[in-house]
Amino acid sequence: MLTLVKKMLAGDSVALSRLMSQIENHSKDSLAIMAEVQKHCGRTHCIGVTGPPGAGKSTLVNQLIVQWRKLGKKVGVVAIDPSSPFSGGAVLGDRIRMQEHAGDEGVFIRSLGSRGSQGGLSRSTREVVKLYDAFGMDICLVETVGVGQTELDIMGIADTTLVILTPESGDTIQTMKAGVLEIADLFVVNKCDRPGAELMQKSLIQMLEMGVSSDWTVPITLTNAIKGEGLGEVLKGIQDHRQSTQNNPLKIAEKKATLKDEFQEIVITSLKEKVKAWASQHDEKFQDVDQANPYLMAQDYLKEDL
Amino acid sequence: MLTLVKKMLAGDSVALSRLMSQIENHSKDSLAIMAEVQKHCGRTHCIGVTGPPGAGKSTLVNQLIVQWRKLGKKVGVVAIDPSSPFSGGAVLGDRIRMQEHAGDEGVFIRSLGSRGSQGGLSRSTREVVKLYDAFGMDICLVETVGVGQTELDIMGIADTTLVILTPESGDTIQTMKAGVLEIADLFVVNKCDRPGAELMQKSLIQMLEMGVSSDWTVPITLTNAIKGEGLGEVLKGIQDHRQSTQNNPLKIAEKKATLKDEFQEIVITSLKEKVKAWASQHDEKFQDVDQANPYLMAQDYLKEDL
Repeated sequence: MLTLVKKMLAGDSVALSRLMSQIENHSKDSLAIMAEVQKHCGRTHCIGVTGPPGAGKSTLVNQLIVQWRKLGKKVGVVAIDPSSPFSGGAVLGDRIRMQEHAGDEGVFIRSLGSRGSQGGLSRSTREVVKLYDAFGMDICLVETVGVGQTELDIMGIADTTLVILTPESGDTIQTMKAGVLEIADLFVVNKCDRPGAELMQKSLIQMLEMGVSSDWTVPITLTNAIKGEGLGEVLKGIQDHRQSTQNNPLKIAEKKATLKDEFQEIVITSLKEKVKAWASQHDEKFQDVDQANPYLMAQDYLKEDL
Repeated sequence: MLTLVKKMLAGDSVALSRLMSQIENHSKDSLAIMAEVQKHCGRTHCIGVTGPPGAGKSTLVNQLIVQWRKLGKKVGVVAIDPSSPFSGGAVLGDRIRMQEHAGDEGVFIRSLGSRGSQGGLSRSTREVVKLYDAFGMDICLVETVGVGQTELDIMGIADTTLVILTPESGDTIQTMKAGVLEIADLFVVNKCDRPGAELMQKSLIQMLEMGVSSDWTVPITLTNAIKGEGLGEVLKGIQDHRQSTQNNPLKIAEKKATLKDEFQEIVITSLKEKVKAWASQHDEKFQDVDQANPYLMAQDYLKEDL
């Protein structure tokens, strides 16, 4: 397994792809893989891109990649499949546009399914970002659809988060006000040739004024991604945000908290598997549904475990 | 602590109330309390009531309580406060109506806040239901507002679930189709004097026909809760559902799965606390955010733990 990690570190993209599959499937070796990968992390700039469906995220992401490639930067993309917890369906329409980078060695695209639990998805995303980081990607883009709780959780991974809206996104903002305010480091009002773009910009400014003040002033850029308008400003905003956060004591405190959360999540995931395996092996204890006492069983298990 | 449990089992409602607080606050003694409480469980009929805001849930619940009290049945109510994960606000307007039972020893009402995690709330709810069960409540009503994922999780606790709608709830059903279909054992179309009640009934029937067939035919009752119309039918539906599920092999398999989940959740909650405490005690390991390797730390922790 660690041979695969070595190959990946040497630039083998097939090895990268295989490792991503191992991580996504929560293979037995995940922990050992990630312990090694972590040692080579810390360089990439992770950029989250979210917003309601139809806002033009994929087009914008695509254009940004073109610009970064011109600057010689290597880019990894994590695209999160939206799939209902009930239907299990997936919408992947826009993804096809990104195929134009298919022949480019400096761009790598990975889709992650949200079939598992929400928590599981944000962990997989974080680990795929780390794999990109160790692989040597200068920029790692995480793209999600929607502005729900899952997206907010996933965006917690990003160093810089772009929220893409359109002039018509008023309702989206109303329902997700607090959450969107909290995560957006940059707002982009795309499709700015449509009526209402300036009005949207104004209401975002008002919204931001009501929020908690911080060192960073969230820029609100009007773009027309298809025509490439406003791209330069977005790129500058991203760069400025990175500079403003590096070595920022608040960000370091945040990173420390994240590190503790990560540690706890990794340990708990392993322990969960152990408990689940125990429950499967002791099926006989769960036969008498009326008499079985899960609290007593838990007490016994915890005593043995200590 | 077990003295409090003894008092509660002897019918002391102050002790019941105190135990609920212990459980809701995840006190240290929770596990020991519940291990004892569990021994006295298994009699109550847990009925979940959910539906969109304004459907008249509280009025209906109130009327059902009046009927059950006439039959001499003791009723415990768990009312779940809806509160946004961001604002922390709570809406408790309708709750006041239930105050009319305030002087009645056979009715007990408890509100549970959703400030904590979603998983935490459904566990607290399950444990409060168990406390009611051990206390001797014949019926335990769990009332939630809305038809989102949190409500679906909580409704998993109920033996019988009522989904209350109004003639205007068409959109609610469209968005939550699969989830609502899965959990509803009875549909109630309340405020049936309003236009569209029969139409709503018809579209529910169509929806149910598309779903998975089972032994139980979900009744769709039209009610006017304020006037008390249709109450008898709802009560009969609840009774019929209980009879159809008792000793049903599918339900027993479901209970076994629930029991395993419960056991795992109890163990994991305890282990989480342990890991969290360890992380707090070893703060020095998390100081160097750029060098710290959460995976290596996790490996070390898990080795010690084994």
